[in-house]
Amino acid sequence: MVVDRTADLGLGQPKTDRVAGVTRALILGGGMIGSAMAADLAGDMDVTVADIAPDVLAAIAQRWKVATQVEDLGVPERVRGLAADFDIVLGALSSRMGLATLDAVIEARTPYVDISFMADDPLTRNAAAQAAGVPVVVDCGVGPGLTSMLAGHAAKTLAPCDRIEILVGGLPERRTWPYEYKAAFAPRDAIEEYTRPARMREHGREVVYDALSGCELVDLPGIGTLEAFHTDGLRTLLQTLDVPNLREKTMRYPGHAALMKVLRDTGFFGEAPIDLDGTKVVPLALTEALLFPQWQYDPDEADLTVLRVEAHGRPGGTPTTLRWDMLDRRDAASGLRSMSRTTAFPATLVARLVAAGRFTRPGVHPPEVLGAQPGILDEVLAGLRARGIEVTRTTR
Amino acid sequence: MVVDRTADLGLGQPKTDRVAGVTRALILGGGMIGSAMAADLAGDMDVTVADIAPDVLAAIAQRWKVATQVEDLGVPERVRGLAADFDIVLGALSSRMGLATLDAVIEARTPYVDISFMADDPLTRNAAAQAAGVPVVVDCGVGPGLTSMLAGHAAKTLAPCDRIEILVGGLPERRTWPYEYKAAFAPRDAIEEYTRPARMREHGREVVYDALSGCELVDLPGIGTLEAFHTDGLRTLLQTLDVPNLREKTMRYPGHAALMKVLRDTGFFGEAPIDLDGTKVVPLALTEALLFPQWQYDPDEADLTVLRVEAHGRPGGTPTTLRWDMLDRRDAASGLRSMSRTTAFPATLVARLVAAGRFTRPGVHPPEVLGAQPGILDEVLAGLRARGIEVTRTTR
Repeated sequence: MVVDRTADLGLGQPKTDRVAGVTRALILGGGMIGSAMAADLAGDMDVTVADIAPDVLAAIAQRWKVATQVEDLGVPERVRGLAADFDIVLGALSSRMGLATLDAVIEARTPYVDISFMADDPLTRNAAAQAAGVPVVVDCGVGPGLTSMLAGHAAKTLAPCDRIEILVGGLPERRTWPYEYKAAFAPRDAIEEYTRPARMREHGREVVYDALSGCELVDLPGIGTLEAFHTDGLRTLLQTLDVPNLREKTMRYPGHAALMKVLRDTGFFGEAPIDLDGTKVVPLALTEALLFPQWQYDPDEADLTVLRVEAHGRPGGTPTTLRWDMLDRRDAASGLRSMSRTTAFPATLVARLVAAGRFTRPGVHPPEVLGAQPGILDEVLAGLRARGIEVTRTTR
Repeated sequence: MVVDRTADLGLGQPKTDRVAGVTRALILGGGMIGSAMAADLAGDMDVTVADIAPDVLAAIAQRWKVATQVEDLGVPERVRGLAADFDIVLGALSSRMGLATLDAVIEARTPYVDISFMADDPLTRNAAAQAAGVPVVVDCGVGPGLTSMLAGHAAKTLAPCDRIEILVGGLPERRTWPYEYKAAFAPRDAIEEYTRPARMREHGREVVYDALSGCELVDLPGIGTLEAFHTDGLRTLLQTLDVPNLREKTMRYPGHAALMKVLRDTGFFGEAPIDLDGTKVVPLALTEALLFPQWQYDPDEADLTVLRVEAHGRPGGTPTTLRWDMLDRRDAASGLRSMSRTTAFPATLVARLVAAGRFTRPGVHPPEVLGAQPGILDEVLAGLRARGIEVTRTTR
């Protein structure tokens, strides 16, 4: 059964009992996303970035006015201890650290906005967050994240909403044989997208496709032709939205999915060790060692992020289609790549709302719940626009 | 400078001083090719098959009337000791054992016919074989082997011969995504073909291409469309033939070369160990472990072998094109695959000539030298025809 979690969000004006002063924000992870979060918040909050790599932190501290702290964030106790000292925490770690980090921040009773694409269901921590009395927003990047907010908004606006399709992709501007792809976030999470079973909903029933299946060509203005294939990007939408048809696809330059399917089905993404003359080798570990250097963006290399969310419904009996399109490119001025910006800014914009006391309801909330509140979506879209990211809306 | 090695081959009638009786033949290797050699010679010679794997030998002994011997043929001394007891030796080992085995058999002073696709130049052992007083024929499979004989014949018949192009491929009848390929000989040697620099001759000069380059589509009667790409299959032809333009390509179902290029250029065929968290891993070793089980023929699975040798010359001033075509399919009666048959039978037919004392000249000889003698080529082609392998010749 689908629960309407969009009813009461506690959205409102700043609480009067809030302590005045500058918000102390902790960013977990100084990678591609974490550094964009730092860039966005540095002027307005008292920001500390924590990461295990001193060189990564040094590079961030050189560019933006933030404090840094070397910390092994793979140890939940360290995260908990650290988080307790801050007013808000933003998570920019890889998906494999997602759930343990979520637990640690909840235990620290600090409000949390996370972009981790964790394999586990973060809503299982809702009761824990409620008990701790802290608001947590998960999956709050671009897709899931911005796409989820748009879907949540569409489901509410178009009710009864019959169908939502989400297409999203992050790509290098320059196409280089053979993969025509670079990883603008943890490359291991890119491969995760190609291996996790992809859950969709069709006619009210959940169906599971192979990742990389359902590959079709899509023409997009300003880009040309991309391919779009099933990935497991619906996540909490499958629980939160009362929409019988939900589909999510990732977009790449045509040909990429076929190569990934070859590698995956040959066994190169395997996580079970193979015995090679007495040595245990995890195929994925070797594949990562070979592939990731080739998937790394050059320092000044430009990328783009593209998304389309299309929804169909019959509000008041009138067949209506709502569509949002976004095509964002690397910002030369800040040097931040598009994927870093479009992933980090939904999180920083929501973190600003939380820090301002405008979203305080305890519990673990997915972005679609926020998007169903017109006030929040409008504010996030305005914030993105102010940061040069235009999401255009078409109604038919 | 190109040496004409085709002049005096010592081809003739059986020597009168030859000891009467049944020839004792040793086959080195009981794999896909060695077992086909055993099948062909079992009725006519006293055959022993040597291999390191007892189960492989047991399967051969059960089917054909041959003796077997378990032996580690990777130890040259064992090969030498064994070879000394026989009248003739046939080599059916993987290319990496080729040169050491060649040396061992020459030291044993036993005539030798080998199909190994060794990376080294076997003609460097010519003086040793001459000194030992034994005839040796190397590269005596289908391509190199039969194709080399045809090229040697064409170069002589069409003199001055301007251009020879060799196309050859072994393929499963059933095309299975993604590779549409199975290895009908040592699969490591199939990958060798995709990594060795491919030497060609153009306008009298040697040029080296990347393996897998120059990929083009070829329509072939009875098959449809295949792709053909550069591989290093000319081998000794570059030394022995006075033909200014020589090209060799391997054929596969379209798309195979591109996938191999992706794997190779990503590093999956690398032989230098990579450090994975302290464990040294050779990428090729993992790739073989993943790929080869998928490249293995099912027991009764059918294959085909296709070759085309086309030569252009101006004998007596008249522009003339000679072309040989062969399309062979698995023999259901014997259960031997086409690639096993077409690779083994050129060797067994030449071994019969040697054993009969009809080719006795000491030295290391490539097949094109034999092919330039119409007597030998005709006999080999007749022998192949008697075994159901038809090579059709077209003259324009």
